[in-house]
Amino acid sequence: MRHLLSVESLSRGEIERILDRAQAFAEVGKRDIKKVPTLRGRTVVNLFYEASTRTSSSFELAAKRLSADLVSVKAAGSAIDKGESLKDTISTLSAYDPAIIVIRSPFAGAADLVARWTDAAVVNAGDGKHEHPSQALLDVFTLRQRLGTLEGVNIWIVGDVLHSRVARSCLIAFQAMGAEVTLCGPPTLIPRGIAEATGASVSHDIDGVAEADVVYALRMQQERMSESFVPSLREYAMRYQIDSRRLTPRQLLMHPGPVNRGVELSPEVIDSPQSLISAQVESGLVVRMAILYELHTGSDQPRTTGPEPVDTPPRIGQPA
Amino acid sequence: MRHLLSVESLSRGEIERILDRAQAFAEVGKRDIKKVPTLRGRTVVNLFYEASTRTSSSFELAAKRLSADLVSVKAAGSAIDKGESLKDTISTLSAYDPAIIVIRSPFAGAADLVARWTDAAVVNAGDGKHEHPSQALLDVFTLRQRLGTLEGVNIWIVGDVLHSRVARSCLIAFQAMGAEVTLCGPPTLIPRGIAEATGASVSHDIDGVAEADVVYALRMQQERMSESFVPSLREYAMRYQIDSRRLTPRQLLMHPGPVNRGVELSPEVIDSPQSLISAQVESGLVVRMAILYELHTGSDQPRTTGPEPVDTPPRIGQPA
Amino acid sequence: MRHLLSVESLSRGEIERILDRAQAFAEVGKRDIKKVPTLRGRTVVNLFYEASTRTSSSFELAAKRLSADLVSVKAAGSAIDKGESLKDTISTLSAYDPAIIVIRSPFAGAADLVARWTDAAVVNAGDGKHEHPSQALLDVFTLRQRLGTLEGVNIWIVGDVLHSRVARSCLIAFQAMGAEVTLCGPPTLIPRGIAEATGASVSHDIDGVAEADVVYALRMQQERMSESFVPSLREYAMRYQIDSRRLTPRQLLMHPGPVNRGVELSPEVIDSPQSLISAQVESGLVVRMAILYELHTGSDQPRTTGPEPVDTPPRIGQPA
Repeated sequence: MRHLLSVESLSRGEIERILDRAQAFAEVGKRDIKKVPTLRGRTVVNLFYEASTRTSSSFELAAKRLSADLVSVKAAGSAIDKGESLKDTISTLSAYDPAIIVIRSPFAGAADLVARWTDAAVVNAGDGKHEHPSQALLDVFTLRQRLGTLEGVNIWIVGDVLHSRVARSCLIAFQAMGAEVTLCGPPTLIPRGIAEATGASVSHDIDGVAEADVVYALRMQQERMSESFVPSLREYAMRYQIDSRRLTPRQLLMHPGPVNRGVELSPEVIDSPQSLISAQVESGLVVRMAILYELHTGSDQPRTTGPEPVDTPPRIGQPA
Repeated sequence: MRHLLSVESLSRGEIERILDRAQAFAEVGKRDIKKVPTLRGRTVVNLFYEASTRTSSSFELAAKRLSADLVSVKAAGSAIDKGESLKDTISTLSAYDPAIIVIRSPFAGAADLVARWTDAAVVNAGDGKHEHPSQALLDVFTLRQRLGTLEGVNIWIVGDVLHSRVARSCLIAFQAMGAEVTLCGPPTLIPRGIAEATGASVSHDIDGVAEADVVYALRMQQERMSESFVPSLREYAMRYQIDSRRLTPRQLLMHPGPVNRGVELSPEVIDSPQSLISAQVESGLVVRMAILYELHTGSDQPRTTGPEPVDTPPRIGQPA
Repeated sequence: MRHLLSVESLSRGEIERILDRAQAFAEVGKRDIKKVPTLRGRTVVNLFYEASTRTSSSFELAAKRLSADLVSVKAAGSAIDKGESLKDTISTLSAYDPAIIVIRSPFAGAADLVARWTDAAVVNAGDGKHEHPSQALLDVFTLRQRLGTLEGVNIWIVGDVLHSRVARSCLIAFQAMGAEVTLCGPPTLIPRGIAEATGASVSHDIDGVAEADVVYALRMQQERMSESFVPSLREYAMRYQIDSRRLTPRQLLMHPGPVNRGVELSPEVIDSPQSLISAQVESGLVVRMAILYELHTGSDQPRTTGPEPVDTPPRIGQPA
């Protein structure tokens, strides 16, 4: 594995290798000294063009627990304010000879571009509405820890599928691991033709969620909605909110966070025993340690710079 | 000691144990290598919802000198911008299994709530107008280093007592260590009934400050004043400013910083030999190392989560 | 060497000692573990009052590769927002007993003042329109690596010389190392009398750049221009932009970054084989490691605080 740009580019075997490595790091996390020397003296760059607490702190702490030297660049207060292009920023940061660059960007395809411009291994920490592969991997890890396997598990992804890179990456990852996936939401928030393109089921009727083993609620991405896709958040909550009436005790609940309390989830289900939300965050740390580890150890072979055929067309049609 | 939420909850013995530990760290600070391995491989989270240089940098450096891995989250540019609730943020950060969470919040009681929601030890680094215990401990440490004891020392706390968490915490700590405390300021900036509630003296006449051994000037908290409590800063400065006419050579001067030069203090007293302001910052680092150390080593006994009776009613009536 | 406040205060011998040390660190940078224990247990403070990616991340990583504990303070979100004066901020930060303070400020002379107020060694990382010595040293290092020597090399510095601390520092450093320097730009952007004051040539005709061995293009400092010095950026680009017609294959191209693409440089020359821009960033890291190293090891002799005669008048007249 040279970069982690998308779930789509991973084989099931590669996914499983990362999960197994994450399992090993979960053991390290139980020790008093939660640190290993893997990346000692190596540099990890965290480049975030969007606000983030959990993904950015999770990658930062993962890098520190691997003993790396971390350079953290946030869009605000940086040369990016002076209008520096992404290419120039990557060129600058690459001059530090980092082992790994972690990039979050509001633009789909940004991580692919970065991978062409640097010798470092690149991790896509979210690129616009395209993909968020480390999120999908941590979700698979969380479910595998709880259920042993995803084979034949019935997962409903509920909410704003249209604007969600998490939905895209999770759909691909869950299917790759053998799960049956249904996408559920109002027609305006489900991309047209997605059933045909992906083999997922589509439902606009939330009552069907009763058949799911796992309910994966998406965040309403208000900050990415340029138009009005739902009449109001209140209207959306009335029709699609997962609450204690809809969630039965045999079902598991997931959410990528941060939750809009009272919108996509009611407060009581967030803290219910069925909720895996905290487990997801815990998984995030060890899965990201595993990703950094695999990219570093996989990079022992010599590298070449320049264009690479990494830019395969997205499997799910991007909404206009 | 499980958490450090307030000075009020500390016994004199506990205060003295922290001060003794800080004294030991002051020796470490004189060495070339100012680092000890106490928290190696452990994680300290710094969560600041208010702007801060000295408190936040002091806790950060304290954590680094104890060899901890630090996760620093500032309100701006984080998921907090996306409307994440404090509870969800703590739940997220707790999933990293931190040894200690240091929290500053504009809301009184925030640190107490955090302590209910996490297995980590919690340090209150300032919660609204309630308390700022590490500030009070460093102030006691500074005075003890200079005077040997606070027993019978006459301390005047001057200025905006009403809005000051520093005033609250220092009053409690100074009294616990045997000092005589007088609160001095215009009637609008002294909480009603505080003399009866605390045993402190109250004076609206700044000329009485001549009897003090130590003058502790408070910062005018303009950013916390929602109404107009003084006619103007100029008017306040004319009546209550500590300047070289008011400060006699046998008196010591303290201030929690940052100083509004020319408002609560005149420029010449800030840099006078009587000023302990730099000594206070120096103490801040070693006292915070001591706090982190005590919370870490005190946490060897197994912990339980869930509600705890930590929310004792504040001793000084909160202004409306 | 006690501080690094300006290039002007360095002898050629001091410059060469820093470059030789940087050369040694360049070797360390080729190792897998790019870290040395020089500053272990010491504290480096990075205090940036202006937005910066490359200078600030370069000093941060340099400090980390020397194993220092880093305290990073940016103007936004700090007590500086509460109106704390520079002197008080330095006094606060000095209480941590840092080995080195790196300061960037929008005010000329700020670093000199800081050096009077602290026992730490001080590095000027850019002070208004005055100097940016680490930039000049990394540029000399980059050229020495490529050309072996600067003796007799013909360097044209092109663009907004008037507002550029980089131009000031580079001019002094290039001349000190034996280069012939020409300053080129529209008359409104070249300080009057600079030829007489410095011995540099001045040209307003960009066509003369054909004679240069090295073309050093400056960034158009739009954020520092309080008035309109050029009719428009488009007009400036038409007359002074370095593009592939102006740059011949035997010439080298430099730029301090970040580049305004399409203004001072055309996109194709930025990525041309003649461009040293990435090499400059690479040099930045090792030269800054060398600076921190020299200041630390040079500080073995005991230090005294208080005013020092560091404030020699600038050699180039400050524009009004």
